[in-house]
Amino acid sequence: MTAGTAGTDAIEGSSAAQAPEDTRARLLGTALRLFSEHGVEGTSLQMIADALGVTKAAVYYHFKAKAEITEAVAEPAIRELDAIVDEAATHRRRGAQIDHLLDGFVDVVVRNRVLVALFSSDPGVARALEKTLHGSQTFKSKLMTVLVGPEPDLAAEVTARVTLAGIALAGGDPDLADVDDETLRRHLLDTARRLLGRPRRHPRP
Amino acid sequence: MTAGTAGTDAIEGSSAAQAPEDTRARLLGTALRLFSEHGVEGTSLQMIADALGVTKAAVYYHFKAKAEITEAVAEPAIRELDAIVDEAATHRRRGAQIDHLLDGFVDVVVRNRVLVALFSSDPGVARALEKTLHGSQTFKSKLMTVLVGPEPDLAAEVTARVTLAGIALAGGDPDLADVDDETLRRHLLDTARRLLGRPRRHPRP
Repeated sequence: MTAGTAGTDAIEGSSAAQAPEDTRARLLGTALRLFSEHGVEGTSLQMIADALGVTKAAVYYHFKAKAEITEAVAEPAIRELDAIVDEAATHRRRGAQIDHLLDGFVDVVVRNRVLVALFSSDPGVARALEKTLHGSQTFKSKLMTVLVGPEPDLAAEVTARVTLAGIALAGGDPDLADVDDETLRRHLLDTARRLLGRPRRHPRP
Repeated sequence: MTAGTAGTDAIEGSSAAQAPEDTRARLLGTALRLFSEHGVEGTSLQMIADALGVTKAAVYYHFKAKAEITEAVAEPAIRELDAIVDEAATHRRRGAQIDHLLDGFVDVVVRNRVLVALFSSDPGVARALEKTLHGSQTFKSKLMTVLVGPEPDLAAEVTARVTLAGIALAGGDPDLADVDDETLRRHLLDTARRLLGRPRRHPRP
């Protein structure tokens, strides 16, 4: 499939019935796959166009630069995470706040494993995260406040940071790629709850 | 200070008494500082030369490409880590193996915080790590074997991965940059020991 003109039609190719959102989603899905295979650095707009069977101009119609694609790929998971932190903060008891946050955080990590693996190995994705969150400091401090309160002692703060970083990095670890979502979710949650002093939920097998 | 010719003398500039190893160390120190300020991606050989007050040719005398500098910057810490894993494996009891590994791992992370922060945000440094270790799979599996035995259940494996990733990432977290080494070391160790079921060493304050 080839396309000589820029624009939505060029990307949609033969399936002209697709809505523009589908086209955009297809482009982002292809970009994520190529990013995970070659890294963000190693993926060009031309490669994305080739994989979709369209011209580079057709890709430009949707995104002006690779950085825009990186942001768009990461954005849904980041917004989801942001919403989870806000929801967690509405619970009255600290325990319920932590539970809500851990459940949501682990779930987002596990459902977006490929993306998370990229997050942890590519500065481009990290920059996209900062940009989407309009200064990740606000997000990070909201998140830490839910986990350890507004004025934590250093021990609690270090534990919380180890927990979040460890969950994210282990969740995206290619060595665990063949573990199914439900199993990985359960083990990550068990570990996180143990670290943060929450009672065990799943009986030992 | 300027230098018009390539070579060791050019970098040493006025302090001609320095040994070549000192020159190399000075170059690597400057590179690490620039990497941490601008990222590996954002640091050019020219910037390193400028910061040292020498020509780019003088830098080329020691390193043919930026990738070689990245590797050389990371190499000592990686070799140290590799040695710690081997030493840990020589202990007879599993508990002593884990203790040795955690002490060493946390210590290397804390002493190399700037480097570790780079590790976790730059694919170039990650590639250097793989290259120096001649296939990090061997290193990783040695390390995991010490922590959880040769045939761990999945729960133990996930916990160990969360621990190592969390320690490394939290240890390099710029938000904890003003915590002194000894304090950070103690808190990271406490967290890691708790996760891996090792008895508490430091009494609660």
